[in-house]
Amino acid sequence: MALLERHVFVCHNTRPEGAPRPSCTADGKSELFTQLQQFAKAANLGGKVRINKAGCLDQCEHGPTVVVYPEAVWYGAVKPEDAEEIVSEHLVGGRPVERLRLAETCVNTKECPHRQPAS
Amino acid sequence: MALLERHVFVCHNTRPEGAPRPSCTADGKSELFTQLQQFAKAANLGGKVRINKAGCLDQCEHGPTVVVYPEAVWYGAVKPEDAEEIVSEHLVGGRPVERLRLAETCVNTKECPHRQPAS
Repeated sequence: MALLERHVFVCHNTRPEGAPRPSCTADGKSELFTQLQQFAKAANLGGKVRINKAGCLDQCEHGPTVVVYPEAVWYGAVKPEDAEEIVSEHLVGGRPVERLRLAETCVNTKECPHRQPAS
Repeated sequence: MALLERHVFVCHNTRPEGAPRPSCTADGKSELFTQLQQFAKAANLGGKVRINKAGCLDQCEHGPTVVVYPEAVWYGAVKPEDAEEIVSEHLVGGRPVERLRLAETCVNTKECPHRQPAS
């Protein structure tokens, strides 16, 4: 068992009201986290995959955001109802869910066309 | 730039007082997080490496715990004064800091000899 096969981080950051960049906490992130945990458990992924809360993943315009390691697959605008597909397709089947993936041109770059100025 | 070269997660979980498993939040985790951020910034790792807070990483007996992806290197009992070495050796130099690594026999297994029963 030892090292995890996959480690999934769900952004749980909350920005203060009125902050220039958006915060996606109100968009069902807690439910998304819970759903991912429950579907992972139902798929007997305990000990192989961990679903983790994370602080700000800095992809705020694309939230709710999820990143899966070690393969560094980033998902954006993930809804609780997407949890089952992420678990069955990606975490069990090893096939990332392409319709939810963030484009590389959006991840971790200020050149992302959706990014809002920080101030 | 796009995908991160490395993504570092620092456990920030707080267990309730009296919980059967320990909580390492009181052991300088916030300072560790800040130090890692500052040394990473000073080493011009912005855009390449992200230092992130995480919820419970489930290695509670070995906290403060840090995990570095994509290589899945786990560190335990990390002190704020270890931050500079983690940044210079691992995040810049690509050489994990062996003296801080958690043994594979301790990571993600209930067979870990240090693990305390959950109840």
